[in-house]
Amino acid sequence: MAYINLPEGLPGIRGPMAFRPDTAKHLNDLAEVLLRADNTLTRGERELIATYVSYLNDCFFCQNAHGALAQHYLECNMKFIDTVKENTNDALISPKMKALLSIAESVQKGGKQVTPLQIETAKLLGATDMEIHDTVLIAAAFCMFNRYVDGLGTWAPKEREFYINRAKSRAEEGYANYNPYH
Amino acid sequence: MAYINLPEGLPGIRGPMAFRPDTAKHLNDLAEVLLRADNTLTRGERELIATYVSYLNDCFFCQNAHGALAQHYLECNMKFIDTVKENTNDALISPKMKALLSIAESVQKGGKQVTPLQIETAKLLGATDMEIHDTVLIAAAFCMFNRYVDGLGTWAPKEREFYINRAKSRAEEGYANYNPYH
Repeated sequence: MAYINLPEGLPGIRGPMAFRPDTAKHLNDLAEVLLRADNTLTRGERELIATYVSYLNDCFFCQNAHGALAQHYLECNMKFIDTVKENTNDALISPKMKALLSIAESVQKGGKQVTPLQIETAKLLGATDMEIHDTVLIAAAFCMFNRYVDGLGTWAPKEREFYINRAKSRAEEGYANYNPYH
Repeated sequence: MAYINLPEGLPGIRGPMAFRPDTAKHLNDLAEVLLRADNTLTRGERELIATYVSYLNDCFFCQNAHGALAQHYLECNMKFIDTVKENTNDALISPKMKALLSIAESVQKGGKQVTPLQIETAKLLGATDMEIHDTVLIAAAFCMFNRYVDGLGTWAPKEREFYINRAKSRAEEGYANYNPYH
């Protein structure tokens, strides 16, 4: 049972989004620009940043929903996603992505935890100003989404298959005009 | 110097907002609904929640910009705002507001830090489901805004007067269609 009287049967963020469509609209529009619109970071890479931050914030719903989307876009298995979350340095991702995930990890702890050396390293490895900006804002946004989902005491399906089975249609549907009842 | 090449002369969140208008639009639309649109919580009360969370996140720009707005709406002095930030229990605010600020404080630490007892207390003191929802989302949103501002290494004017002098016009202007160059 969530802490407030949310529409029934909707897991994770879908309950609060159905409860308050006026805020859901802008949350979804933000997610669309950050995670799905044209970008030099692929959709898979951006969902991976979202997944990693949600894991660090221990948000079960978000790390599984976005982890399944990352897996769909990157055409990998969930073991790869787990390695990125739990042993980032061992993951088969580019040095630039490791540098961006390191920045995201610092943002998760607090804005002031990001260091000039982390930024310099990311730039040396090819990250553009826009990619650094978007990494910081994706990480910051998931510090919001994760707190929204858990701060209202929402429930989430335990089985990974639930999230994996929805990933393809969620990827096609996108975030803008998202209907939480679907 | 910010970590990336932001438009010059714009303090705090205004630099990143001018750098990336596509995300700024949705951030501002979200702020408009949460902090300024019709609500049973006054604009002053909602800016107070934003200020308190920004203080807990040690974000100098946000706690001063929103503290000045709270002071403007509540027609109080900055000493009152400082008491709410530093000694919340001693502040002359309603028991319901204290309960909502306590929920916001937990959200700042992490979504799972909110307890059923905090929610029950807020409800006993008259908080509605919508007020609890909005408190959680305002607190979560400022965990994003604060990280966005500090994670990109932006600068901020040191003098309180800067923020106080801008509060009246900022209150009138609102967040929707906000121009970061003004």
